[in-house]
Amino acid sequence: MKIIKNIEELREVINNYYSLNKIIAFVPTMGSLHDGHLSLIRYAKETADISVVSIFVNKTQFNDANDFTNYPRDLDNDIDKLSKLKPDIIFVPNDSEIYNKDFAIKISVNKFHDCLCGSSRIGHFDGVALIIIKLFNLIKPHKAIFGEKDYQQTLIIKKLVKDLNFDINIIVQPTYREPSGLAMSSRNLRLSANGKKLAFAIYKTLNEIKTDPSTLEQKKFELLDMGFEKIDYLEIRDEDDLKLINNINSAQNKRIFIAIYLEGIRLIDNLKI
Amino acid sequence: MKIIKNIEELREVINNYYSLNKIIAFVPTMGSLHDGHLSLIRYAKETADISVVSIFVNKTQFNDANDFTNYPRDLDNDIDKLSKLKPDIIFVPNDSEIYNKDFAIKISVNKFHDCLCGSSRIGHFDGVALIIIKLFNLIKPHKAIFGEKDYQQTLIIKKLVKDLNFDINIIVQPTYREPSGLAMSSRNLRLSANGKKLAFAIYKTLNEIKTDPSTLEQKKFELLDMGFEKIDYLEIRDEDDLKLINNINSAQNKRIFIAIYLEGIRLIDNLKI
Repeated sequence: MKIIKNIEELREVINNYYSLNKIIAFVPTMGSLHDGHLSLIRYAKETADISVVSIFVNKTQFNDANDFTNYPRDLDNDIDKLSKLKPDIIFVPNDSEIYNKDFAIKISVNKFHDCLCGSSRIGHFDGVALIIIKLFNLIKPHKAIFGEKDYQQTLIIKKLVKDLNFDINIIVQPTYREPSGLAMSSRNLRLSANGKKLAFAIYKTLNEIKTDPSTLEQKKFELLDMGFEKIDYLEIRDEDDLKLINNINSAQNKRIFIAIYLEGIRLIDNLKI
Repeated sequence: MKIIKNIEELREVINNYYSLNKIIAFVPTMGSLHDGHLSLIRYAKETADISVVSIFVNKTQFNDANDFTNYPRDLDNDIDKLSKLKPDIIFVPNDSEIYNKDFAIKISVNKFHDCLCGSSRIGHFDGVALIIIKLFNLIKPHKAIFGEKDYQQTLIIKKLVKDLNFDINIIVQPTYREPSGLAMSSRNLRLSANGKKLAFAIYKTLNEIKTDPSTLEQKKFELLDMGFEKIDYLEIRDEDDLKLINNINSAQNKRIFIAIYLEGIRLIDNLKI
């Protein structure tokens, strides 16, 4: 397990793997690793010769400066967790290594972007696309592994890979959940004990809507009554093109999406119907 | 010499070169090959194991639909010329192979873009950046070779490579010229015999300005008197940041840039002072 902070050193190591014809799997993270991340890394290790994990809190994908500042960071703890799994490389660049002072490139992904987290977090997915391109070019993976909790993000990254012709296999793994059903997220760390107890209602509600989609509007009131502060969205959409589903009995592949605030923290989840 | 039209076949061949640890050099072109292109391809062959030439008239970099339509295309002639040099691969994709019908990515390069060809051809360099990213991801070259005639383009591509962390060496080769001094360009094919005779005045003028920069404004009148229709720009700029030079005696690295119309055709050139 090699911790690399610097691009030049990373390049040397990656190019050496290339000269040995190694297959590289990559898991990008923003740190504050939880069991969801670890399951992705385990998958990477099992399905490739070399596993690379990046830890980088990417400012360009934060539309809210406070959210960026408050995003949990604990590198020692992350490295401690990784030392049990031993990925081959942990890439931990600092900000100035990734964004030089006259950085000048902007990416826009004009599909899947104008709904769900795309409408509530303006510019978020463009920032994601930018850092993903950079990390793909740095790590040159054969496959990259993402969690399904960020479902919209996985669609955007697949679109990016297709449209820009990256020769990278995008693999989406199921959302990893607490025993209560709460989707694992670094943001959960910021919930109080009480908040965490309440938060399990998110997944429970998704399951109830899955059973009876006609209850969707009523569920919004119930969540607010429970103590959630605000619902960003709670919607059923086509899982291929993210269009809103008007007729719940249609033959489309459907998925329920939620973003909701609790204790000032924005939590997301989704569930296939 | 293998002519490849399809992305899947290209990937297979490129990945095979990778497994053999071959160094790949890439020369992107829009076809209508002239001796300038051929000199870049010769350089690619001499300095790498594998040379790849792409021929693709990229619509996203044309701000003027007529210019795109009228851009010279002669694939048989191109292949004939290449068959003397025998690059390993000629990649000739068609439009739909490169831009799928719901293509959704836009790139903006916000440096070096708001002067010279960037101001007269709005969106041109964003289109160049887009196709270059795609071709880099398809061909995965270790080095890519460009001509200095498109000096501003070479700065933008270097910036793109730096900011997006492509592991590709960008090599800029001197402008290849006709015996008269006229910079080789596919657009020269559209000049009449008379036009071609007149066009040599472009390079002659740049040299005269190099000798005595104070004549620059007067040279504009002289060019128009000779029969050129319009001068897009004739300027001396810093060759590192493209800022206009106010004091010609400054210590900056200076370069003269010209874009000028003759017989309805836009011709460019530049010369280091």
